[in-house]
Amino acid sequence: MNRRRFTTHLAAGIAGFSIGGRFRETALSAAPSLRVEGDRINRHLTELSAFGRNSYGGVSRVAYSEFDRQGRAWAMDVMREAGLTVQVDAAGNIFGRRAGRNAALKPIVFGSHIDSVPDGGNYDGDVGVLSSIEVARTFREKGVTTRHPIEVVIFSNEEGGTVGSRAMVGDLTEKDLDLVAASGKTWRDGMRFLGGDPTRLTAPLKRKGDYAAYVELHIEQGGTLEEDGINIGVVEGIVGIGRWEMVVDGFSNHAGTTPMNKRKDALLAASKFIQMVNRVVTAEPGRQVGTVGKIAVVPNAPNVIPGKVTATLEIRDLDGAKIQRLGNRCIDEAKKIGAENGTTFSFTQTHNLKPAIMTRSVQQAIEASAKSIGLTTKYLPSGAGHDAQHVSEITPTGMIFCPSVGGISHSPKEFTKPQDVANGANVLLQTILALDAQ
Amino acid sequence: MNRRRFTTHLAAGIAGFSIGGRFRETALSAAPSLRVEGDRINRHLTELSAFGRNSYGGVSRVAYSEFDRQGRAWAMDVMREAGLTVQVDAAGNIFGRRAGRNAALKPIVFGSHIDSVPDGGNYDGDVGVLSSIEVARTFREKGVTTRHPIEVVIFSNEEGGTVGSRAMVGDLTEKDLDLVAASGKTWRDGMRFLGGDPTRLTAPLKRKGDYAAYVELHIEQGGTLEEDGINIGVVEGIVGIGRWEMVVDGFSNHAGTTPMNKRKDALLAASKFIQMVNRVVTAEPGRQVGTVGKIAVVPNAPNVIPGKVTATLEIRDLDGAKIQRLGNRCIDEAKKIGAENGTTFSFTQTHNLKPAIMTRSVQQAIEASAKSIGLTTKYLPSGAGHDAQHVSEITPTGMIFCPSVGGISHSPKEFTKPQDVANGANVLLQTILALDAQ
Repeated sequence: MNRRRFTTHLAAGIAGFSIGGRFRETALSAAPSLRVEGDRINRHLTELSAFGRNSYGGVSRVAYSEFDRQGRAWAMDVMREAGLTVQVDAAGNIFGRRAGRNAALKPIVFGSHIDSVPDGGNYDGDVGVLSSIEVARTFREKGVTTRHPIEVVIFSNEEGGTVGSRAMVGDLTEKDLDLVAASGKTWRDGMRFLGGDPTRLTAPLKRKGDYAAYVELHIEQGGTLEEDGINIGVVEGIVGIGRWEMVVDGFSNHAGTTPMNKRKDALLAASKFIQMVNRVVTAEPGRQVGTVGKIAVVPNAPNVIPGKVTATLEIRDLDGAKIQRLGNRCIDEAKKIGAENGTTFSFTQTHNLKPAIMTRSVQQAIEASAKSIGLTTKYLPSGAGHDAQHVSEITPTGMIFCPSVGGISHSPKEFTKPQDVANGANVLLQTILALDAQ
Repeated sequence: MNRRRFTTHLAAGIAGFSIGGRFRETALSAAPSLRVEGDRINRHLTELSAFGRNSYGGVSRVAYSEFDRQGRAWAMDVMREAGLTVQVDAAGNIFGRRAGRNAALKPIVFGSHIDSVPDGGNYDGDVGVLSSIEVARTFREKGVTTRHPIEVVIFSNEEGGTVGSRAMVGDLTEKDLDLVAASGKTWRDGMRFLGGDPTRLTAPLKRKGDYAAYVELHIEQGGTLEEDGINIGVVEGIVGIGRWEMVVDGFSNHAGTTPMNKRKDALLAASKFIQMVNRVVTAEPGRQVGTVGKIAVVPNAPNVIPGKVTATLEIRDLDGAKIQRLGNRCIDEAKKIGAENGTTFSFTQTHNLKPAIMTRSVQQAIEASAKSIGLTTKYLPSGAGHDAQHVSEITPTGMIFCPSVGGISHSPKEFTKPQDVANGANVLLQTILALDAQ
């Protein structure tokens, strides 16, 4: 099916013929109607799911594990089948490159990751990588050669803290390399295990100007698109994360002999705190979220009044100032809660990740590309961290979301419908063409 | 100092002279003025504290440990010095016996325990045991022979679940004996380690009618006596304990991508539950207490919405019906809390220990004895469990409390002033004499 509804910039992007003689060339006027083979992506998703599959469902292909290495080897084969030239960088990131028509231009990069959380699903990361390979393969099969070189990237150890992309932009310290990943290996040993060379990470691997653009397709991981019946999310930015470690000091005493009005129950105070966080975070308009996800009680016995509680507070939003303002309000209100029952709250901020705003022109290219193929779109933030947030430090960057059924992620129940995967890949393809024309 | 203010029953209790020729006898008219050597008890408390003393403070003389064995050996020596004949029963309980004037009478028993919780203090149990030995020694040194035989008892493994006293009255099953104590030994192996013979526990060691009475002196472990400036607590009964295990099922999801109004946060629901318990338990008059002391969250990560929480609910009171009524109210209200955010609560009752009411005549003897030596008294419940609650199944039983500084117990900071220890021992002495006269 040839669709002739060109947008201005897409039309610009396909003016003229490829100058490379290596591949069979399709009339470039057909580029707007270019589509991936959705079935092939979904078949590849199933094939990749075999590496680290759990007998009880889901996948545990944690970074630097044997399953990770096997999955990567399989993915590199799929890259080569798609005509890409494969290289592994010092951080273990995989790049599959195809030359463009203009050797003077910097590459347009697109991809994601294929490592998983323990007991994770088969869409987080995988959809972006396999769609990116499919886009490159479609270009090759349909004889389309872009002006820019293209590079499909598989970042290493995304789930352990976007390690590969941080390493690429020079955001890791020597000390970071000694951190231990879910596989049990240090980041340093893990990178070596994947064929990298961590001794080369003393300088950034890539700098501003090295790339023309970066685009990442990913599942939403939230439920907004599915609930609103929208095909494609255009990511405005990746939220910042403020995280605090909280300690509530009360007094541990015998739960039988201590009257109710004489207690300094740290868990009772922490409970009031958890409710207050919920109230403060939802009290004002916006998409900010606040979570108390981790808690430990001392001594944690049925017959002893809790003397001490440690817990985490995490707040995320696209606006870094709002994160700090809400965090400070929670800390202020905690002091009042403590005063009510003789407990004391103390806080240490452990994370202050700045929001990463996506490049406006890339957002517009994504929206126009989706609309050009008849898909509905919605602008939204990414509540999860992604490699894109680090790559955005060195190049214009955008992210495409496709719907997650039930908003479920990091779970064996994670699922994105095959048509939605194909839609995402087609938007990625058209976005790359649009950026290539700029 | 001879005090001549006899009460009727004390006068009755000392009518006549000892018929035993072994000890030097004091004129029995001096019995109301009989006093222990408080300094000796407090010196013995210090000596006993050496067994299992922690370098960082407090004591860890957990039942069936090597420190427990050493402490018991030391205590048996002190018993022998006090003229008592020592025996260990099948459950590892130690009895130090002294004959009375009338061989046809059943023994009056008094004592407590000397095992501690991990990181405990030096007063819980120890005060009762060392005061009891001192009372027996005072009788001997002052030439007083009671009508009834007397037995000082050191119950084994009180802190692990009043194991020794339960074994004595036939309240343990074969399965119980396989439970593992804080020392790492099963109860069965622990009893053997202490010189007991668990194979003999198929029948009760003692039955109704075997004893004339049981009296236990213990630290209050709460702060009521100290706050009210009262010398002696007369225990009305030992509270019953209702304990429930609670499970809150929510839905675990990404804390960045899941909007606040789409969450099924099990910890948020559990927090509301904890506050509700506090409200329900304090809403009506009385001395009931309710505690959520233990909690576990799954998956317990800062960036994941808690999907599951398990926690304990414990309610104690002297009125068993009230415990069940308050427990049921908490369970009812929990369902409403769950409905608010799509979580579900389920409960399993794991404990239903009946309250043990102390014998009225023994309570009166304790009160009269305290008043006879010029001490103030207050009736109060015991919020903690004690060996007395099991012994009360087979014989008239009473408990004497002396003040705990700050109400602190099961802690290295546990403390009872030397004078309060001596006061407790003197009330015990006079109570034994009073009961001996009945």
